[in-house]
Parts: sequence; C-alpha cells; structure tokens
Amino acid sequence: MFYNAFARLDEVFSFNKVSAHCDIPCKIYDPISAQLAVLTMIRMVDLLEELHAKSELSANDQAQFGRLVAQKEEHGLKVKEEIRVIWGDYIKQPQLDAYPQLHELSHSIMLAASKAKQNIDKSACLELLDKVNQFADIFWQSKGVATFKATCPYPPAQQIVYPDLKA
Amino acid sequence: MFYNAFARLDEVFSFNKVSAHCDIPCKIYDPISAQLAVLTMIRMVDLLEELHAKSELSANDQAQFGRLVAQKEEHGLKVKEEIRVIWGDYIKQPQLDAYPQLHELSHSIMLAASKAKQNIDKSACLELLDKVNQFADIFWQSKGVATFKATCPYPPAQQIVYPDLKA
Amino acid sequence: MFYNAFARLDEVFSFNKVSAHCDIPCKIYDPISAQLAVLTMIRMVDLLEELHAKSELSANDQAQFGRLVAQKEEHGLKVKEEIRVIWGDYIKQPQLDAYPQLHELSHSIMLAASKAKQNIDKSACLELLDKVNQFADIFWQSKGVATFKATCPYPPAQQIVYPDLKA
Amino acid sequence: MFYNAFARLDEVFSFNKVSAHCDIPCKIYDPISAQLAVLTMIRMVDLLEELHAKSELSANDQAQFGRLVAQKEEHGLKVKEEIRVIWGDYIKQPQLDAYPQLHELSHSIMLAASKAKQNIDKSACLELLDKVNQFADIFWQSKGVATFKATCPYPPAQQIVYPDLKA
Amino acid sequence: MFYNAFARLDEVFSFNKVSAHCDIPCKIYDPISAQLAVLTMIRMVDLLEELHAKSELSANDQAQFGRLVAQKEEHGLKVKEEIRVIWGDYIKQPQLDAYPQLHELSHSIMLAASKAKQNIDKSACLELLDKVNQFADIFWQSKGVATFKATCPYPPAQQIVYPDLKA
Amino acid sequence: MFYNAFARLDEVFSFNKVSAHCDIPCKIYDPISAQLAVLTMIRMVDLLEELHAKSELSANDQAQFGRLVAQKEEHGLKVKEEIRVIWGDYIKQPQLDAYPQLHELSHSIMLAASKAKQNIDKSACLELLDKVNQFADIFWQSKGVATFKATCPYPPAQQIVYPDLKA
Repeated sequence: MFYNAFARLDEVFSFNKVSAHCDIPCKIYDPISAQLAVLTMIRMVDLLEELHAKSELSANDQAQFGRLVAQKEEHGLKVKEEIRVIWGDYIKQPQLDAYPQLHELSHSIMLAASKAKQNIDKSACLELLDKVNQFADIFWQSKGVATFKATCPYPPAQQIVYPDLKA
Repeated sequence: MFYNAFARLDEVFSFNKVSAHCDIPCKIYDPISAQLAVLTMIRMVDLLEELHAKSELSANDQAQFGRLVAQKEEHGLKVKEEIRVIWGDYIKQPQLDAYPQLHELSHSIMLAASKAKQNIDKSACLELLDKVNQFADIFWQSKGVATFKATCPYPPAQQIVYPDLKA
Repeated sequence: MFYNAFARLDEVFSFNKVSAHCDIPCKIYDPISAQLAVLTMIRMVDLLEELHAKSELSANDQAQFGRLVAQKEEHGLKVKEEIRVIWGDYIKQPQLDAYPQLHELSHSIMLAASKAKQNIDKSACLELLDKVNQFADIFWQSKGVATFKATCPYPPAQQIVYPDLKA
Repeated sequence: MFYNAFARLDEVFSFNKVSAHCDIPCKIYDPISAQLAVLTMIRMVDLLEELHAKSELSANDQAQFGRLVAQKEEHGLKVKEEIRVIWGDYIKQPQLDAYPQLHELSHSIMLAASKAKQNIDKSACLELLDKVNQFADIFWQSKGVATFKATCPYPPAQQIVYPDLKA
Repeated sequence: MFYNAFARLDEVFSFNKVSAHCDIPCKIYDPISAQLAVLTMIRMVDLLEELHAKSELSANDQAQFGRLVAQKEEHGLKVKEEIRVIWGDYIKQPQLDAYPQLHELSHSIMLAASKAKQNIDKSACLELLDKVNQFADIFWQSKGVATFKATCPYPPAQQIVYPDLKA
Repeated sequence: MFYNAFARLDEVFSFNKVSAHCDIPCKIYDPISAQLAVLTMIRMVDLLEELHAKSELSANDQAQFGRLVAQKEEHGLKVKEEIRVIWGDYIKQPQLDAYPQLHELSHSIMLAASKAKQNIDKSACLELLDKVNQFADIFWQSKGVATFKATCPYPPAQQIVYPDLKA
C-alpha cells in the first residue's frame, strides 16, 4: 500500500544508499557484444578494400561504399557504448584495485574506436580489437573465469578472447 | 569516375541481380545476442519474484518493479529482432532444405517472446530460452561448427548452447 | 493492493499461461506501414535514377546520393520490421492453417527487402512491393475485409492493395 | 568527377537555393501514420479501463498497466512527430494561403497529444483523433483527393478520415 | 490503494481535464539544444568546404564526406525536434498572445532546417541559426530572462543568443 | 577521381594515422547537455515526492509515477552518454596531464548516475549534479574559458556551472 510504503521511505533509502550502486542490477555483462562490434568494423574495412581493388566504382559500388562506412560508424559507436557500460556499471573499486589499468585501457578503447571510425584503416581496427580483447580478458579474470583465444567462426576470422566454459 | 559508372549501370545491375541477396553482406551472425536477451528476461523475472517476496512495496520497489518490467519488455523485443535478422538475412534455401523446421521454429520464438514479454512467468521465459537454444544449435550446425551446452557465467546461470571453438 | 495481488500469483499466472500469446495485445495491425516503406524505397530508386541522368554529380548531388541511399536503407529495414510484427505477433495457428504459404511469403519478403536494400534496382523494389501487396491481401482476407487495388495518391504512383472500407 | 563538380559549386547552389525547400524531397506524406498512432492511444485507454474494472490488480496487471501507459506515451510522441513532419515539410505558403487554420490546428494537435499522454482519459484521446482527422481531411483536400469517413477495421473501431482511392 | 483510487476516477479525471495540458510537465525547456544542433550543421558545412579545397578526394575523404553529410542530416532533424518540443509543449495561448509571430517563426524554422539539410550551403545554415536565435530570444523574454549575444566558445564561432544568468 | 584516390591509399592512410584521433572531428563539445539531463533527474524526483505527499494514488497518479520514473531513467542514461562522449572523444593526453583526476571523476559520474537512476533519492541526484558541475568546470578551464555559478532559469532551480561568455 503506497501510504505505508512512503511512511517508510527513509529506512528504505538508507538501505538503498549502502547497497545500490549499479543499474537494475542485472549483473549480466558480457564483452562479446563489444567484440562482435569490432569484428564488424574490421569486416567493413575488408569489404571497403575489396571495392578498392576495382578500377572504378559503379553507382551500386558507390552506394555500397556509403553503406559500409555507415555500418563501420554505427559499430564503432556500439563498441564505445558496450565498453562504457561494463566500465561504468560493472567496474567498481574492487576491480580497480585489482586492475589499476582499467581507466586507462577503457579510455584508450574510446580513442582507438574513434580512430577506427574516422579512417578506413585495418591496422586501426586491429589495434582496437587488441585493446577490447585485453579488456575482455581482464573482465573474465575479475570474475574468476578462465579464458582462451580462438578464431571467431565467421569473417573476419580474427582471434578473440573467449571465456572457457567447457572446462 | 561517376559518368562511366552510370554508363555501365545495366551491366552492373544484371551482375547484382544474380549475386546480391543479403544485407551488406557482412556474414557476421551470432545467436549469442538473442541468447543474452533471453537470459536478461529470465533475470528480470527472478528479480520481480524477489520483490514478490516482500509483504509490501516501497516507492523505490514500485519504481524498480517498473524498471524491471521495462527491461524485460525491451529484451523481449531484442530477442525478436535478433532472430528475425538471422532467419531473414542468413537463412536461405540451402538452410531451409537442410532444416525444414526453421520457419516454424523461428515463428514459435516470436510467439514465445510475446508470451514472455506479456507475463511475469519464468516458465514462459525458459520455454523461450529452450527454443532459442534449439535455433542456435541449428545455426551452428549449418555452419559446420560443433556446439556444447554450458551454464552461462553470470545470473541467471542457465544452460546455453555455445559454439565449440576450443577444439 | 500489492500484498494480496502477489498472494494470488499462481492463480493469476495459470490464467495467463492459457490466454496470453501476443504483445499488449492491442490488435491494431495494418500492412499500410510496410507498404508505405516499400513505396519510399521505390521513390528513392527513381530519384537515384534522376541523378543517373546527369553527366556528372556536383557536391550537392553526391550528398543527395548518400541521403537517398540512406533513406532506402532505413525504409528497407522498416519493411522487415513491420512484416515481422504482423507475422510474429498477429499470425498464429488459425491463420497458418488458412494460409499455409505465410511462412514462405514472409521469409521471401525478408530476402526481397535485403536485395532491394543492397541494390539500386527498381525491379527488385517492385518485386518486393508485389510480395508485400500479396501479404496485405492475405492479411485483410484473414480478417474478412475485402480489398481493392488502386494507385497510391503520391509518387511513385504504384498499385497498392487497400482494404475496402467504403462498402 | 569531383574536381569539376566542386569548381561549379556556386552555380549548383544558386540552383538549389531556388528549388530545394523540403527533405529528400520524397513527396510521400500520409496522415494515416498519425491516425494509427491516435487509434493506439485510444486502444490503450480502453485496455486501461478494462483493468479499472478489476477490484484489485495482480502483479501481472501492474506490469500490464505500466506497459499500456508506456505504449500510450510512445504513440503520443509518434502523433506529434508525424504531424510535425507534414506540417513542417509538406505544408508551405500555398497550403497556408488555402488553409490559414493550419498553424493553429497543428499546434492544437500538439497540446491535445500532450493532454492525451498525460491522462488516462478517453475523451482527451477522442478530441485528439477529431483534430487529427480534420488535419487529414485538409491534407487530402490540398492534394485534390476526395475523402470519406469509415470505421477503422480493428479496435478501437473509431471513425477515420480516409482518402477515396476507389472512385 | 488501487481499489479506492479507481473508485475515485471520475473526480480525478475532471480535475485533470482542467489542469493538465503539457507533458510530464517538467518545465525544463532550453533552446540551447536546438542552437547546438544548428552550430553542428554549420560546422559540417565548413568541414565539407575544407574537403572542397582538395583537388581530388581519397577514399578516406569520400568516407568523411559521407560522415559529414550524415551528421548534418541528423542535426537538422534534431533542430526540428527541439523546436517542435518548445513550440508544441511550452508555447500556449499566453505566449501566442504576447508573441503572435511564434507559429510563423516555428514553421519557418522547419522549412529552413529542411533547406539546410538538403544543401551544402552555409548561408542556408546561417539563415537557420538566425531564426533559431530569434526563437531563443522570444523564449527567454517570455520567461522574463534577459539575453545577450556572444560568440559560442567552440567552432564555428557564431553569435548565439544566451540567457543572461550572471546579472 | 576514385581510381587515383585509391591508388594513393597508402599515402593517405599514413597521413591519417598520425592525424586522426577523434570523431568527425567537429570539436563542438558542451557539458550543458549532461547538466540539463541531471537537472531533469532532480526535477523528476521532486515531482515523485509531490506524489508522495498524497495519501493515496489515483490511476492517473500511478501512470504519472511510471512516466516520471521512466524519464528519470532515460535522463540518467543521457548523463552517462554525454559524459562518455566528452571523456572519450575530447579528453586526450594533454587534458589528462593537466587534470589527472579526469578518469576517476568520469567514472564516479557513471556510478553516481546509476545510483540516481536506481533510487528515488534527491541527495543522490544532487551528488551527481555536483560531480557533473566539477566536470564542466574542468572542461571549460581546459579550453581557457572562465566559468561562474548561477541558478538555472527553470526548475529545479539548482546551481549550475556556466561558461562566462559575457566578459
């Protein structure tokens, strides 16, 4: 009943003040979403380079060029969002004490994602993937989950850090 | 050079008519996004049931109730979107010939996601997860990737079909 | 009052389990949204072909080219979404029994929308419109509403299947 | 070829300055999208009033209450967006000269949509529908398309102004 | 308590009918969001003109051209949205009586934003900024807040109407 | 001309590799968007507390409760996005050298925004505003723009850090 509930607000809130520091909290965080977004950026660059092999671009090629750049852009934003969520919602003092490089690494992912967005540059995308894999590795370590590297089962066939759930 | 490109449109398009049947095509499809969304729905129901254990709800509990329902809703939509993308973009005649149940299974996922959205009903969510796991299993089979079942490394600790990339 | 409500959860949910299979349910479904989206794709192709008539493209033409492709892309996605909603939320066993072609037709709309998105190809867009009109015709039939074909009152002046509400 | 194109920018832009005053321009405007959104708001209120008939609300009812309000909210925003597009993109001086009430009518739709969003009030929704129907009637008149009123073929079975395309 | 609340619906709604005419209402309206969006459009045109200075465009330049046009497009839409919100939610009869030009000014902003979206035309963007500044000036006047003009502290270094909060 | 452009890709990219590290770059960053979002959260809490003053909630009050919580939620997300953009796109090594607290401050804003989202707690919102004002102050300092504190000219009438542009 609302009336009583509100009568107990202070108590409720003091309880919340000590306990509630993350969203919902659903505790379902997984760097795979960020990793998939980087893979998509790499894939877009590979396809842009296939267009590059042509001596001239047809109208369809021009349109495809624009679609590829737009997808690269969108997934670059997604990388930033996904990392921001894990960094800003999951990572708290205990994780920062254990992995003091997390602020610097997270920030360097933002800069690397910007560079990969602004350029058609595979090495910039691979540099971003390397940072996101490092982030994923630390994330799984912080949860006590072992990891392994494997080639993702689709293009662009890059090495991804996965949690070892089979063991 | 645009002028030439447009001069060659007919040729270009006849080429495209036989080859182009999917978006971009980036070929990066992964059912994990749909699986994560179902796990989130299950988690929301678990948290809604924790609220249920309380004899009355504070204003914060009321707000949390609304936030949990909204997240469940949003992730139910995400399940539908992710399955629609794989069903509508990746699955073509060869996959339908090999797995004739795909239309029926995909459609049943839509109905199951609606049911899980409209109710605070864990069994409806688990039924949805079971269907999405079946879909994931077929998806990986169709790509010649072996799968295994493992408990996801976060709440709600359900069994998920994963591609076996370690082998 | 919340307390009693939660006390009666089992009863409530068993009721829901048998009755609830669609979203909200608001029962307001109309294929016109999908039809409008296809018309927009056709219109974009017509405008892209007007650009094609030019011997060279100015910077504004280049920008317009990109805007037209982006709009075609966005509306191609909208077609998929709108059809997915009717197929996945409205169409259930009774409609599937009456119109067994609905899975195949819905899936072929997804593939046709992808093709129309990826190409500057009027015939691909017209093929998509034909399929969406077939879908609209079945939809209205399933509701016992007669239909008629008429030219839409705006560009690209294509024949659209409309419900006959005047009778 | 870009170089030449840019060399001719001034000429190009002076041309554009006299001709280009609307988006794209695709010329595909249809008030049906706004009308469908109002119908959805009315439907949400009807369903909210069905909940009202219950002596108490279960947890599922509470969740449904929130989902209905959220849908009403979202569709109220959609009404505003759809009317803003036609008013701001399609309606220009000639339409304003012919229908001087358009600014006042469009603005009153915004206020009526706000009222319908903020209240669970069927009469406020019906008032909004009446204004949107008036807007649709003027829109079709301005295009020289006759209109008729008919009951929409789904709940909430309200009278809608439709273009007469069968004639 | 829900039961009683619903028993008192008529009384509640009659109260709402006379009082509720805006969203939420949060009363936090600020034209700065629209002004920032116009500044971004101007900035995109300046950067597009920097590309113009090049004798030819690399693939990166082509991609950047598309990104700049897309950003200009997106911010043109944002201008329309932000002005629609203030015009449609905040401006009511008292403001219309005091500033009878508001309908015409708001509508002219929509047309000017469309023109600025469709062209790479700095003068069109500056014309839009002038109108949005006029709108901002009237808005602050209507709230009894004095304004001043100053150069915004970032590119494109244009004169913006700001509320004078320092006095 | 595309052919030449692509022929010169390596050269182009090596140029880009040293120069391009931010999005677009449009250089238009303004913390006012984040500040407005926090003000909205505070306002939502004030309105939620007005509801609190009522002995019972009508159906409209229940709906308003949900709308207020949803707006608070949405603006909490906006605070995080706006701060992420400035931290991740604008702040680079020079700013970090001058203001070494920026990582810690940005991260603490994410945690504070989560807390303000999850609770109906004015003090949590005010704590968030204080952090965002600190962030704004450093941002303007880093650009050599003096700041001053003033009460925002709308509810919730809180002290905001503004750039001093009048001087």
